[in-house]
Amino acid sequence: MNKIITLGEVMLRLSPADNRRFAQANSFQIDFGGSEANVGAALVYWGEHVSHVTAFPDDELGKRAVSELRKSGLDTCLISFLPGRLGLYYLENGSLQRSSKIIYDRFGSSFSKYDGSDKNWEKELEGVTWVHWSGISPAISQEAADLTYRILKIARSKNIEVSGDINYRSNLWQYGKMAHEVMPKLIELSSVLIAGTRDFNQCLNKDFNDFSEAKAYAFEKYPQLKFIAKTNRKTHSASHNSLDAELHSKEQVWKSKNYEVNPILDRVGTGDAFAAGLILGLRKNDPKWAIEFGMAAGVLKHAVHGDLLLSSIEEVQEVADGTSGKIKR
Amino acid sequence: MNKIITLGEVMLRLSPADNRRFAQANSFQIDFGGSEANVGAALVYWGEHVSHVTAFPDDELGKRAVSELRKSGLDTCLISFLPGRLGLYYLENGSLQRSSKIIYDRFGSSFSKYDGSDKNWEKELEGVTWVHWSGISPAISQEAADLTYRILKIARSKNIEVSGDINYRSNLWQYGKMAHEVMPKLIELSSVLIAGTRDFNQCLNKDFNDFSEAKAYAFEKYPQLKFIAKTNRKTHSASHNSLDAELHSKEQVWKSKNYEVNPILDRVGTGDAFAAGLILGLRKNDPKWAIEFGMAAGVLKHAVHGDLLLSSIEEVQEVADGTSGKIKR
Amino acid sequence: MNKIITLGEVMLRLSPADNRRFAQANSFQIDFGGSEANVGAALVYWGEHVSHVTAFPDDELGKRAVSELRKSGLDTCLISFLPGRLGLYYLENGSLQRSSKIIYDRFGSSFSKYDGSDKNWEKELEGVTWVHWSGISPAISQEAADLTYRILKIARSKNIEVSGDINYRSNLWQYGKMAHEVMPKLIELSSVLIAGTRDFNQCLNKDFNDFSEAKAYAFEKYPQLKFIAKTNRKTHSASHNSLDAELHSKEQVWKSKNYEVNPILDRVGTGDAFAAGLILGLRKNDPKWAIEFGMAAGVLKHAVHGDLLLSSIEEVQEVADGTSGKIKR
Amino acid sequence: MNKIITLGEVMLRLSPADNRRFAQANSFQIDFGGSEANVGAALVYWGEHVSHVTAFPDDELGKRAVSELRKSGLDTCLISFLPGRLGLYYLENGSLQRSSKIIYDRFGSSFSKYDGSDKNWEKELEGVTWVHWSGISPAISQEAADLTYRILKIARSKNIEVSGDINYRSNLWQYGKMAHEVMPKLIELSSVLIAGTRDFNQCLNKDFNDFSEAKAYAFEKYPQLKFIAKTNRKTHSASHNSLDAELHSKEQVWKSKNYEVNPILDRVGTGDAFAAGLILGLRKNDPKWAIEFGMAAGVLKHAVHGDLLLSSIEEVQEVADGTSGKIKR
Amino acid sequence: MNKIITLGEVMLRLSPADNRRFAQANSFQIDFGGSEANVGAALVYWGEHVSHVTAFPDDELGKRAVSELRKSGLDTCLISFLPGRLGLYYLENGSLQRSSKIIYDRFGSSFSKYDGSDKNWEKELEGVTWVHWSGISPAISQEAADLTYRILKIARSKNIEVSGDINYRSNLWQYGKMAHEVMPKLIELSSVLIAGTRDFNQCLNKDFNDFSEAKAYAFEKYPQLKFIAKTNRKTHSASHNSLDAELHSKEQVWKSKNYEVNPILDRVGTGDAFAAGLILGLRKNDPKWAIEFGMAAGVLKHAVHGDLLLSSIEEVQEVADGTSGKIKR
Amino acid sequence: MNKIITLGEVMLRLSPADNRRFAQANSFQIDFGGSEANVGAALVYWGEHVSHVTAFPDDELGKRAVSELRKSGLDTCLISFLPGRLGLYYLENGSLQRSSKIIYDRFGSSFSKYDGSDKNWEKELEGVTWVHWSGISPAISQEAADLTYRILKIARSKNIEVSGDINYRSNLWQYGKMAHEVMPKLIELSSVLIAGTRDFNQCLNKDFNDFSEAKAYAFEKYPQLKFIAKTNRKTHSASHNSLDAELHSKEQVWKSKNYEVNPILDRVGTGDAFAAGLILGLRKNDPKWAIEFGMAAGVLKHAVHGDLLLSSIEEVQEVADGTSGKIKR
Repeated sequence: MNKIITLGEVMLRLSPADNRRFAQANSFQIDFGGSEANVGAALVYWGEHVSHVTAFPDDELGKRAVSELRKSGLDTCLISFLPGRLGLYYLENGSLQRSSKIIYDRFGSSFSKYDGSDKNWEKELEGVTWVHWSGISPAISQEAADLTYRILKIARSKNIEVSGDINYRSNLWQYGKMAHEVMPKLIELSSVLIAGTRDFNQCLNKDFNDFSEAKAYAFEKYPQLKFIAKTNRKTHSASHNSLDAELHSKEQVWKSKNYEVNPILDRVGTGDAFAAGLILGLRKNDPKWAIEFGMAAGVLKHAVHGDLLLSSIEEVQEVADGTSGKIKR
Repeated sequence: MNKIITLGEVMLRLSPADNRRFAQANSFQIDFGGSEANVGAALVYWGEHVSHVTAFPDDELGKRAVSELRKSGLDTCLISFLPGRLGLYYLENGSLQRSSKIIYDRFGSSFSKYDGSDKNWEKELEGVTWVHWSGISPAISQEAADLTYRILKIARSKNIEVSGDINYRSNLWQYGKMAHEVMPKLIELSSVLIAGTRDFNQCLNKDFNDFSEAKAYAFEKYPQLKFIAKTNRKTHSASHNSLDAELHSKEQVWKSKNYEVNPILDRVGTGDAFAAGLILGLRKNDPKWAIEFGMAAGVLKHAVHGDLLLSSIEEVQEVADGTSGKIKR
Repeated sequence: MNKIITLGEVMLRLSPADNRRFAQANSFQIDFGGSEANVGAALVYWGEHVSHVTAFPDDELGKRAVSELRKSGLDTCLISFLPGRLGLYYLENGSLQRSSKIIYDRFGSSFSKYDGSDKNWEKELEGVTWVHWSGISPAISQEAADLTYRILKIARSKNIEVSGDINYRSNLWQYGKMAHEVMPKLIELSSVLIAGTRDFNQCLNKDFNDFSEAKAYAFEKYPQLKFIAKTNRKTHSASHNSLDAELHSKEQVWKSKNYEVNPILDRVGTGDAFAAGLILGLRKNDPKWAIEFGMAAGVLKHAVHGDLLLSSIEEVQEVADGTSGKIKR
Repeated sequence: MNKIITLGEVMLRLSPADNRRFAQANSFQIDFGGSEANVGAALVYWGEHVSHVTAFPDDELGKRAVSELRKSGLDTCLISFLPGRLGLYYLENGSLQRSSKIIYDRFGSSFSKYDGSDKNWEKELEGVTWVHWSGISPAISQEAADLTYRILKIARSKNIEVSGDINYRSNLWQYGKMAHEVMPKLIELSSVLIAGTRDFNQCLNKDFNDFSEAKAYAFEKYPQLKFIAKTNRKTHSASHNSLDAELHSKEQVWKSKNYEVNPILDRVGTGDAFAAGLILGLRKNDPKWAIEFGMAAGVLKHAVHGDLLLSSIEEVQEVADGTSGKIKR
Repeated sequence: MNKIITLGEVMLRLSPADNRRFAQANSFQIDFGGSEANVGAALVYWGEHVSHVTAFPDDELGKRAVSELRKSGLDTCLISFLPGRLGLYYLENGSLQRSSKIIYDRFGSSFSKYDGSDKNWEKELEGVTWVHWSGISPAISQEAADLTYRILKIARSKNIEVSGDINYRSNLWQYGKMAHEVMPKLIELSSVLIAGTRDFNQCLNKDFNDFSEAKAYAFEKYPQLKFIAKTNRKTHSASHNSLDAELHSKEQVWKSKNYEVNPILDRVGTGDAFAAGLILGLRKNDPKWAIEFGMAAGVLKHAVHGDLLLSSIEEVQEVADGTSGKIKR
Repeated sequence: MNKIITLGEVMLRLSPADNRRFAQANSFQIDFGGSEANVGAALVYWGEHVSHVTAFPDDELGKRAVSELRKSGLDTCLISFLPGRLGLYYLENGSLQRSSKIIYDRFGSSFSKYDGSDKNWEKELEGVTWVHWSGISPAISQEAADLTYRILKIARSKNIEVSGDINYRSNLWQYGKMAHEVMPKLIELSSVLIAGTRDFNQCLNKDFNDFSEAKAYAFEKYPQLKFIAKTNRKTHSASHNSLDAELHSKEQVWKSKNYEVNPILDRVGTGDAFAAGLILGLRKNDPKWAIEFGMAAGVLKHAVHGDLLLSSIEEVQEVADGTSGKIKR
C-alpha cells in the first residue's frame, strides 16, 4: 500500500450565487471544503489513495459531509462522529475592486472536540507514505492540536513524509495558546513546509526580515526538513491576480512560471491545489516538475467553482505547458 | 402611543428548495425568522407598531438580519449588537409520509448572551401596551431568561398586557436549569397564555390528565391570567393536517371552525400566525373574533413560504369567512 | 385553405416562482399569454392553422413576444407593430386557502391603440373558416372594440363561424363605454358563445335569474347563434376545484363528466383550453365530443405551468377517457 | 464478509424542474439512477455493503456517474469503463390528470456493450450473500443478458440468494430476442422474484388469468424459488395513487397495509425502494416485516426527489408504524 | 436633527439573469431602484438619516417597493400612495462588445401623478440639512417637476443645502415641456450640481464648447452655486471602462485618481454611488476627500449587482486607498 | 422569392450553468443549435427568409427542437421526422486557463439517418438564391453526405450561390469514409468557402504549407469558386482571445479589423455568426463590408449565451464601427 493521509476540518461552505453580497443573497450555494481535504481530493483525482481524518456531528449534515468526501473519492474510514455542530463558513465572492469576504462560524464544531484518542494510529498509519496537515487544525482547539501532534509523531517514527501548510490565521488561536507555543513541535515533525516569511515569524515567534533569513533558520533549526515552498501573489484587484511559486531545498531553488489570472472565478482553495500539485511532484522525486505542476494546479483552481480543483493531470499539465484555452471537442 | 413589544431570537433559516432532502440539496433558500418576531411581523402587517427586542452579531449577517426585520416593518431601535454568532436553523420541508426536519444550530448566538442590561427598560416600555414572549427564550440561556424576566416584570408593574406562548421544547433547556425552575415566575407575569396540557405539565412540573385540569389549576394559581388559548392539530401526513383552536377565560370558552390544510406548503410559523391573530383580536376586546381570526391566520400561513404570514387582514378574514380560493383580479 | 383567426392582446406574464408571494419574490418567471392566443396555440397543437391578430411595441420585448407566438406555432403574419408598451400582468399563484392574485398593468399597450385599419381584412379573411374573439378586447379600448367589430363583421358576411368567449371583467371597461353599449353588436355577429348568466346580464344589461332564462333570450334574440357553452366551477380552495361543462343548442344540451382537480398547478388559461377543445369539436360537427374534449382540455390545463395547454389530442383524450395518470415510458 | 451485489445500467436522468413540460423546460435537473443501483443505494443507507456492477464511458460523464454512486455509498470497484455513451432518460414529471413521461435514450450505451468477460466472477462473488438483478438488463442487449446470466449462474452455484425484479418493458427487447427466450433461464437461477401476472405472461410466454395461477406455475416450475412479491397500485391520477403489496411463499401470503399517497412528488424508483426494503427484510428472515417495511419504503420514496430513497431505517419504520408526518426538531 | 431628503421615482427593475438577452431570458431578477433613492440608500449605509420622497400605487407591488426601501434603511414616512402603476424598467446587462440596454416603462406611474400637494413641506423640512434631486423627476411629468420645485424652494428658503444631479435624458421630457423651460429655476435653487457639458447645454439651452466654459457661466449665473462635480468615463467595451472625477468650486479644482474597472458586473447606479460619496464628503466640508471617496464609491458599485451600492465606508475607503482586492477573513 | 436554405443537424445543447464543471453541475441549461441553423437564424434576424433542412425524432424532444427553430424565425417546412434519437452535445464552458469542453453524443440521431429522398428538391429549391452547408454533415453519415450532395447538385444546376464552411472535425468521419473521399465533390459545387489551411489539407488530402498555397490551388482547381474566407484566432486563455478575418477572391484580399474579446461569455457559434455576416455582405455584393460585418458578428457572439447571435444589424454594425459598449436607454 502507498496511502496518503490528510487531516483537518471540513466545513459547509455557504456562498451567495452570482457574485451577490451577503446583504442581498436570496440563497446560498452549498459546497463542502477544508484546506487539507481539498489537498486530498485533488490527489485522489490524480490517482492517489487518500484517507481523510476528521470528525462530524452524527446528524443529516454530518452524513451529507461524509457523502461529499466519498463523492470526491476520499477514503472516509477514518472519520469519527462526535457531538457538536458542523463547522461552516460564509463566503462572499468579490470581484473588481470589491474584496471577497469570509465569515467563519466554526467554533464548537465536532472536529474542534476531536483529539483522535478513539483510534489506534500506529495501526491506521500502516501502509501510509505521506501525511499532510495545515496550521489551521492546531489553531482551532487543544483537541485538534493534540490530534495533529498524535498523528505526526507516529508518522515521523515510521519515516512517513509529512507536509505542513503552516498558513497563520490571526482570527483563529482563541483557545488560550499562541501559535509559537504549539507550532514548533509540529514543524519539527515535518519534512516539507509551505510557508512565507510572515508564517515563520508568527509560528516561531521570530522577526525575520525576509524569506531567505527565515529559510536559513528553518533549515538549520529543523534538520529533518527537506523542502520549503512558497507562493507569491500580487493582488491587482479581486478579479485580477499575478502568481508564481518557488521551492527551496537546503541547496537549491526552483521557480515556477508567472501567471496572470483574470477574471478570477473562485479564489478559495487555490493554495490547496498548489499544495496538492507540489506533493504529487515531490512524491515523484521531481522538484522541478513539482513546483511547475503545483503552480499550474493553483492557477487552474481560480477557474473552478467551489473548494475543489476537480481537474485531471492532463488539464493541469496543459496549463503548465501554456497550451490550454482552446475548446476541447 | 400604543406600541407592542416582542422579544426573542431571530435566526437565519436555511432550507433546501423544491422539497429536497438535506442529503441532496444544492442550495439553501435564505429566510429569517423566530417565533416572537414572526408574531410581531404579522401584527405590523395589520397596522400595529411593533418593536422587536433581540441581539445580533456585529457583522454582515447581523446587519442583514436587521435589514430583514426592517423590511417586515418591525421597529429595530431596540436591537443590540453583541459578540457571538448568528443563530441558525436548517429546515428540511417534508411532504406526504415524509416528516419535516429541523436541525437547530443556535448555541453561542449573540442573542443567547444578551441579558438586556444595556437598556433602561422603564423608559423603553413607555407607550407600550402589549408585550409578547415565548417559552423559547428562557430555554436558551440564563441571560435570555433574565432578559425575559427583566422586561416582563416592568411590563407587569405598568399594567401592560403580557402574552406568552409557552411552547416547551425538550431539546433546548441545556444551560443547567429545568423549565419548571424558570417558567412559573414568567407565567405569573402574563395575562394571556398559549399552552397545551403537555406545556403546562413541563413548565409547572405537574401531571395534569387533560387540559381542563391544567386550565383550572392555572386560572386559580395565577389570578392575573385572563386567557388561555390552545390549538388542536391532527397530522394525517406531512402534507395534510386538520386544525382548530379554542380560547378559554375563567368563565367561558370560544371555539374556532375546523380546517383541512392540504397540501401544506410551509408548516413553520403557523403557531406564530395564530398567536398574532389572537393578540389582534384580544387587543380589540373581541375574544370570539380573536379565536376565529387567529385560527384563520394560522391556517393561511400553511400556504406561505418562510416564517412570516405576509397577509393582510382582508385575506385572513376571507379565510375565516370561507370565501377565499378564487382568483383575485 | 381552412384557417382559424384568433384576435386579442398578448401580455408578458410575470409570476414569482415556487408559490412565493409578491412580497417575497426574488425573480419573476417569464411567460406570454392572452386569452385568445391561448385558444389559438392549443388549436395549433392539434393540427389547425391559426393566425393571431394583435399588436406589439417595436422593441426587443415586442419582438420577443412575437417569437414566443411563433414558438407556439401561431402564424404571426397579421401582427402589427405600434408605439406603446407591452401589456403585462403579475400573477401570484395561490394555494390552499390562499387565493391567486393578478395585477394587470396593460393600459397604454400597443394593442390598446390598434384598430386594425392598416390591413385589408376582406383579403386577410380569405381561406378563413373560424374566428375566435373574447370579451376582453372590446373592454380594453375603443380601438380594440373597433378592431373586433371590423373583423367580425367581415367574417359574418363571409359566413365564417365566429366564437366569442364573453367573459365580463369589471376592472376593465375604463375607456368610457359600458359593456352593454358594445357587446350586443359583437354577439349578434357570433355563432358560438361561451358565457354564464352573469356574463349575459352584464353584456346585455339584463337581470336573468338563471342560465336557462339567459339562454332562451339569447337564442331568440340572436338567431345566428348555434351554440352556447358554459363551465361550472366549484372552488373548494385555491388548490382544489371541481369542474364540469355543458353545451347548449336551441334544442339540445350536452353535459361533460365532472372532474376533481387537486392540487392545482396553474389555474390561468383553463377556460381558454376549454374553449379550444370546444372549437375543435364543433369544427368536427360533434357537439357531444366537443364538450367532453373541451372540458378534458380545461382540466388538463390545471396541471400545466403558464398560459398554454401544450398538450396533444391524445393526452386530452386520455383525460376524457379517464385513463391518464400512469407513467408513459 | 456479507456483501450484496446489484447489477444494471445507471443512467443520467434529465428532468425539467417545477413540473414543467418538455415543451417549456429551460433547464434539466441532473440525477443519476437505474433500477438495480437504486435498490443498492437504499440498502447501503441501511448499513449493508453493496457493490454495483455496471459499465460507463471513459469520459467526464462516466466519471461523474461513478462519483455519484460513490456519494450514495455504493462500492464502485466492479465498474468497468468501455467505449460507448452514457445512457440517459428524460423524465417529465406529471401531476393531476397529466401523466408522467419518460423518453429513454439508452441504446449504444457502454453498459449495453458490456458482457462482464473482463472479470473473474468466481473471485468477485466471494463473500457475497445476495445478488439482485432486474428484467431491464437482459432486455437491453445480448451482452447485458450474457452479463446477467454469467453472474447469476455462479451465484446459484455458490448458493447465494438471488432476487430478480422481472418488470417487463415492451419498448426494450429490440436486439432480436424476445423476453421468453431469455428470461426463463434467469428466473430458474433466482430465489426471490418481484413480478405481477403480466410480467409472468410476457417472460414465460404464458397466458395466466390471474396472479394465483401464475404463482402456482412458478413455484412448481422453479423449485429453487422461495418468494414472489408483488405491489398493487391504483392510479387515481398522476398526483394520487393507492398502494399495497403482498409476499408469497409456496405456503403462505403476507400482505402489507394500504397507503394513500397524495400529492406525489416523484414516482420514479418507488418500486426499487420497495425491492430494497423487501430484500432487507428477507435477509433478516422476517417475511412479515419484509413486506411491511418494503411497502413503507416504496411509499416514502413518493416524497423524495430523484431515483433514490435517501431515507434511514427509522424513517421508513415510522411510515410503516403510521407515526410519520410531524416536524422533527 | 440632521436629516437628508432625497426625492424621485423608485422603479421595479427587471433584468435577465446570467447576462442573458431579452430574446432568451426565462426569468427576470427583481430589484428596486431609482437614481435619488440609490443616493439615499448609500448615505444610510454610512450612518445618515435619509427620508425618501416618492409615490407608489396602493397595491402589493407598491407595498413591496416600500418594504424594499425600508430594508435599505430609508425613512419611508414621506411616501404617498396614489392611483397609477408602478414604474418599471427592463435591463439587459451587456458585456464585451455588447452594449447594455434599458427599456423604460414608467409612464402613467403613481409617482408621475404626484405633485406633493398632500403634505406640509415647511413642516416636513424641519431638521433637514440636505436635499438631493435629479434631472429625471422634472423630465417625467408636470406634477413631478412641480413636486421638485415645491420642495427645493422651501429648502432654499431654509438655507438647506441642495444637490442636483442634472443628467439629461433625451427619451424623457415627453409631457410638453423642454428641459430648458424647467431646469433653470431648479438649478438656481441648488448649491451643488453634478453635470457635464452636454447636460448644461441641454438644460440651459446653450452651446458651450467645453466644460470650463459651462462652469464659468454657471458659477456666474447662479451665485448660490458652491460646487460642480463631474465624472469622466471612457468606454472601452461594456465590460471595461476607465473612470475619474473632478470637483469644481469657483476657485478650485480637485481631481480623483483614475480607475480601470474590468470586468464590470453592473453598471447601473454607479453615478448615484458617486453622488452619495460626494455628498458625504461635502457634508464633512472636505472637498478633496469628497471627490476621492465619491469616485471610489462609484467604482465599487461596478462590482455590486442591482441599483444599490450596499458598501460600508471602510470598504469604499479601501478602494480609494488602493488596498482592496484581498480576501477578508 | 429570394430564399436561403441552410442544412444540417440541430442538437440539444446541455451546459452546466455558472461556469460549473461536468463534475459538479446540478442542472443543465437547455439550448438548441447546430452550425448551419445558427447561420440561418442570424440571417433571419437580419430580415432574410431562411428555410432549414434537417430531421428530428417524432417525439416531444423533436417537437421541442422544431418549436425552437420556429422561435428563431426559421422556416421549418423542410424538416422531416424520422426514427432515431435527438443528437445532443454537452458543453462545459471554460474560463481563464481552463479550456471549454464539448462531449458530442450525436451518433444514431434522426438526422444521421436522413438522406433527403422524401422530398422533391427540384421543387423545394424554387425561389432559393443561396444554400449554406458545412463540413459537419458529410462527416456524420453516408446519408447526411448524400443529402448534402443531393441538394448542392441541384442548387449548382440552378445557379444558386452555395457557401460551405468546411471545418474539419477529426472526431467525426466514423462511418467508413475519409474526408477527402467525400468533400471534393461538394467543394466543386460551392461558390464560397470558409476554410483554413488545415481544412484544405484534410479535405483535399494535400499538404499545403500555408494558406496562400492552398488558396491558389483551390481557385485553380475549382473555377466556380468566387470567395474563400478565413478567420484568425489567437487564444490567450479560455477567457481572452484576439480575432480577425480575411476574405479572398481570385484577385483581391479584404481584411477585417482586429478585436480583443475578454472575458468571453460563450465561445460556441462564433464562427457561425461570422459566416452569417459574411453571407449577408456577399448577398449585397459588398465584400469589404462583408468581411467587416462578418467579423463584427463573430466578435459580438462571444458576448451572447447559447448557439445563436440574437443581434440586430444595427448592433453588429456598432461593433464594426467601434461605437458599442455604452448603455442604450
